[in-house]
Amino acid sequence: MPVPKHIFDPPFNIIRSSHVVLDVVDLKASAEFYENAVGLHVEERGDAAVYLRGREEQQHHSLVLRKASHATCRRLGFKVGDEGDLDKAAAFFSQNNIAFAFAEQPFQGRTLQFSDPFGFQIELYAAMDKRPLLLRRYDLYKGCHPQRLDHFNVFAAEVQDTVDFYARLGFRLTEYAEEDGEHGRIAAAWLHRKGNVHDFAITNGKGPRLHHFAYWVPTAMNILHLCDVMASSGYLNNIERGPGRHGISNAFFLYVRDPDGHRLELYTSDYFTGDHDHAPMRWSLNDPRRQTLWGAPAPRSWFEEGSPFPEQALREPQFVAEVTVAD
Amino acid sequence: MPVPKHIFDPPFNIIRSSHVVLDVVDLKASAEFYENAVGLHVEERGDAAVYLRGREEQQHHSLVLRKASHATCRRLGFKVGDEGDLDKAAAFFSQNNIAFAFAEQPFQGRTLQFSDPFGFQIELYAAMDKRPLLLRRYDLYKGCHPQRLDHFNVFAAEVQDTVDFYARLGFRLTEYAEEDGEHGRIAAAWLHRKGNVHDFAITNGKGPRLHHFAYWVPTAMNILHLCDVMASSGYLNNIERGPGRHGISNAFFLYVRDPDGHRLELYTSDYFTGDHDHAPMRWSLNDPRRQTLWGAPAPRSWFEEGSPFPEQALREPQFVAEVTVAD
Amino acid sequence: MPVPKHIFDPPFNIIRSSHVVLDVVDLKASAEFYENAVGLHVEERGDAAVYLRGREEQQHHSLVLRKASHATCRRLGFKVGDEGDLDKAAAFFSQNNIAFAFAEQPFQGRTLQFSDPFGFQIELYAAMDKRPLLLRRYDLYKGCHPQRLDHFNVFAAEVQDTVDFYARLGFRLTEYAEEDGEHGRIAAAWLHRKGNVHDFAITNGKGPRLHHFAYWVPTAMNILHLCDVMASSGYLNNIERGPGRHGISNAFFLYVRDPDGHRLELYTSDYFTGDHDHAPMRWSLNDPRRQTLWGAPAPRSWFEEGSPFPEQALREPQFVAEVTVAD
Amino acid sequence: MPVPKHIFDPPFNIIRSSHVVLDVVDLKASAEFYENAVGLHVEERGDAAVYLRGREEQQHHSLVLRKASHATCRRLGFKVGDEGDLDKAAAFFSQNNIAFAFAEQPFQGRTLQFSDPFGFQIELYAAMDKRPLLLRRYDLYKGCHPQRLDHFNVFAAEVQDTVDFYARLGFRLTEYAEEDGEHGRIAAAWLHRKGNVHDFAITNGKGPRLHHFAYWVPTAMNILHLCDVMASSGYLNNIERGPGRHGISNAFFLYVRDPDGHRLELYTSDYFTGDHDHAPMRWSLNDPRRQTLWGAPAPRSWFEEGSPFPEQALREPQFVAEVTVAD
Repeated sequence: MPVPKHIFDPPFNIIRSSHVVLDVVDLKASAEFYENAVGLHVEERGDAAVYLRGREEQQHHSLVLRKASHATCRRLGFKVGDEGDLDKAAAFFSQNNIAFAFAEQPFQGRTLQFSDPFGFQIELYAAMDKRPLLLRRYDLYKGCHPQRLDHFNVFAAEVQDTVDFYARLGFRLTEYAEEDGEHGRIAAAWLHRKGNVHDFAITNGKGPRLHHFAYWVPTAMNILHLCDVMASSGYLNNIERGPGRHGISNAFFLYVRDPDGHRLELYTSDYFTGDHDHAPMRWSLNDPRRQTLWGAPAPRSWFEEGSPFPEQALREPQFVAEVTVAD
Repeated sequence: MPVPKHIFDPPFNIIRSSHVVLDVVDLKASAEFYENAVGLHVEERGDAAVYLRGREEQQHHSLVLRKASHATCRRLGFKVGDEGDLDKAAAFFSQNNIAFAFAEQPFQGRTLQFSDPFGFQIELYAAMDKRPLLLRRYDLYKGCHPQRLDHFNVFAAEVQDTVDFYARLGFRLTEYAEEDGEHGRIAAAWLHRKGNVHDFAITNGKGPRLHHFAYWVPTAMNILHLCDVMASSGYLNNIERGPGRHGISNAFFLYVRDPDGHRLELYTSDYFTGDHDHAPMRWSLNDPRRQTLWGAPAPRSWFEEGSPFPEQALREPQFVAEVTVAD
Repeated sequence: MPVPKHIFDPPFNIIRSSHVVLDVVDLKASAEFYENAVGLHVEERGDAAVYLRGREEQQHHSLVLRKASHATCRRLGFKVGDEGDLDKAAAFFSQNNIAFAFAEQPFQGRTLQFSDPFGFQIELYAAMDKRPLLLRRYDLYKGCHPQRLDHFNVFAAEVQDTVDFYARLGFRLTEYAEEDGEHGRIAAAWLHRKGNVHDFAITNGKGPRLHHFAYWVPTAMNILHLCDVMASSGYLNNIERGPGRHGISNAFFLYVRDPDGHRLELYTSDYFTGDHDHAPMRWSLNDPRRQTLWGAPAPRSWFEEGSPFPEQALREPQFVAEVTVAD
Repeated sequence: MPVPKHIFDPPFNIIRSSHVVLDVVDLKASAEFYENAVGLHVEERGDAAVYLRGREEQQHHSLVLRKASHATCRRLGFKVGDEGDLDKAAAFFSQNNIAFAFAEQPFQGRTLQFSDPFGFQIELYAAMDKRPLLLRRYDLYKGCHPQRLDHFNVFAAEVQDTVDFYARLGFRLTEYAEEDGEHGRIAAAWLHRKGNVHDFAITNGKGPRLHHFAYWVPTAMNILHLCDVMASSGYLNNIERGPGRHGISNAFFLYVRDPDGHRLELYTSDYFTGDHDHAPMRWSLNDPRRQTLWGAPAPRSWFEEGSPFPEQALREPQFVAEVTVAD
């Protein structure tokens, strides 16, 4: 795999992954799941949309649930440094023939929305409305105490090209999985902006689709408690995989499906990656510890299912990598 | 100290400590504290009394809060093997000139109430109403997930005599603290019936008074979360001591005061003591690890304050042991 | 299922499950596993046998590894109240035509060994050598901090008869799984002496064999750490099932296989069962939460493999219950 | 307090706090403490110095213990982006009359050492030797599983000026404590480069001295285990304060003293601060939750004692703020 070089002077400054906008069919059921089982804080509740955030997030929302006729992932949101970065982004997209538009989005102001060359629907903003920090309001904690949105993971049909595109925007590689051999192809890449393992992971698969978005939680105990809560409140079948530990990122994880089938990861443990000489870690596709340092194999659904983006045709991946599934 | 011999054929069969009945001045404030901060389950809520229980208790209540003009500890309750044991107890008390009476208590049926020779107000019963087990209803868990009432700890003015009395009822010594030297006096004793460190601990001090009652919680993490919750919901000053670890019983502990000043311990960690040849562990009064394996010294209030029993005159302890206090 | 009545005056007094004696082929590899991965304390290390114990156990050993040419479970050990109970047991076995013999066993004194009517090899003793308590020697803690041997679980070909036999010895039923319908047969039973969910569990299956023995650990965090340690020290494939939570007993569990294939459970969470009116909990064989409140399905090996007892012919179970397996 | 503006184009690019160099009197005792109680990994052990690192650090060392006749803090180390930043730093210091020198330091290459205007001894480097990542070698974990050096905290006699100086180097304010009133003076400031609460905290006090350096650990359970380990291995009196939770930074903390009296914080919990519009959080000096969200008051030593830097005269602070102490 051609490993992209780290770029320290990108065309504009993306700070981090920020929020996800999901279309959901039953808004009430979806909000109930995220508020009472997962434990996010509902900041704004309307008939058309519900806005939620984690316990340490002062931004108005990191999850937007929108009532819709079909379940899709509408947008993935990244925060940029300041308003000037939005203008620099617009200039860059113009020069590179990437479709974009500015929109005024509720609670998050001027927003640049673009469709990347692979069909991922992304939006950038600089200044979201702020709300009082709830980090020390432990009396309000629920579920697994989700603290902040941490990253997105997508299925990409053209994984190398997608990695190269985001590397050009300044995303830096921390870990990657590839085939063995001289011409081994990349199967998955973990890319960051904010200094931990990832803001954006790109996985070989039928795309463009969202594989999952992830909230960071304080400890594995919170994740085990979420399993207990889900098992005792009618969400047992929404637990898809885990708990277990990935070799990649060393994350202790749980994957759950929301009422519309969107996949959410709760995870903890991570490490600092912000050094300029931080060396990406390579995993052979043949190393099973990559996926599962320990824990039961993932079910087939985890490898195959994901949330499409609106009106984006799906393309088969350029190659098929073998996986170990539970069934 | 004359260490009492373990008696394996007591006059009647006490199974374990079971419940505490507290008189409280502001019933609503008290119930709010135990339900929403501590996390007990309210089984019955009335104008005169509120009944609560822990997450693994099928018995109707382990804590009764009664509206009253003064805050006192009305009764400490123990469960006996069966109805026959109540009759045997009555016979034993008659023979030994101990005042007792039978009463029909709500939700717990035929109840034998007695005042022991030192003024402690005790009640015995065999069959309490049962309620559905909530152990697996994790969706209802609150606070620190208190699981079961575990023990009582009292101030006794005549500590050796009190220990001897309860040893005669079949309580077995697991740990004790005493002065060094040939005629060292006992300062505190931990006595059990159910096979862990204690059901009843007896401490040298102005008595008869309740020092604390304790609920067992699953892990230290639950206790730390309770600190966070109390600090963020107006109960910061109700945290009296801890978290820390006692040498005695190896318990990880937190002591909190309820709105009336009654002291509650939340604790975890313990060990099995049910062997017939289990040897009591002696602690020298001069060993500071006894009180605090690690953690800040206890405040003076912890050594001096307790809940009186109704209409029982207080007596000074027979000797005064030095303690290390925080102030 | 005919649920056996609780017997409160058994022919002799068994206090609890105490120790297991395993024949192992590679004594050094086995001791290495239990000492450095699991974290038991080696009390005595010889060429023919290694004796280990948990962090709160003062008894000389709860696990004996014996060098042998075949891997078997040699004995399951229970502790009785006192020497008189051994004589009462001998009398009872004589009257009931059960083969037994007295032997002097190293570190545990006079020991009554018997073969129960189903081929399980059991030994009883009253007084084992004592060793200094290591509970507060946290500097010596290793692995998952195993605290005490808690129970045995066996495959029995004649499950109802085996349950009835042990109920007659005073074991009390806490939970059981049975077929639905008027004549539903029992598939598994959890029986205790010491006041928690079990000392001895009896499961329908090809028998007599040991399914597993279990050590209690303080928290789920210790179990997760054991997974991490095993995954990074060559024992990944020895993790057979979990972590997860059983509905039965509410236990958070992990099942691992030792170098000889003997199965060890590490578990935490439990509840008090010592009341005389404690009602056994019934689980329908059709309720999947029985096996797995949450977590991946068990692999086939977990249902099928176990440790035989020396020289005991295996018998097929009287009926076959359907199970959900992972493969 | 004049709150310094965030500077996003500093004269050179400091990535993060990186390592601390301590002079210790008994090198063997000191190394023993950090390796076996705290649990750091010894990377290099010599007669004159011992180099240690945390479980996720690939850099050769984050703690250097040097044999010396007096216990001092020799240097605080920060990592810069690349070699060019060292040259830019040299240019900046020349222009601002700050004494500096380049030195070749073992395992960390070209190192720029400077004495800031307040006497703090700092060193900068770009490329330290790398060592294999031990994050997934859980079989080697010890003590409290310290993962990475996170920050330094110093006593400064001229707190406002010191904050201003480091703000000019690009450190951004996240939290601060100040007197109430129009002309309230700053008493402490938390400054970061890497995107969490701090790399460098500056506290009003007799200076220049190091108050503590801190390692991040995965969970509070690891910190409680360290208390247990220290209490049972002769280090009980080295526990100075905690465990507890600071309001500031929301950190769950423990402060321990090493054999030379240098203070080490073990802490967990933190939050992301890398947004350009991240607003500093103000704490009134009159708010007791600042210091202690909950937990026992700090002892006097915690407010008064610290490690001097070699040959730097101590100056009294410009004002004295009242604190609540335990004694």
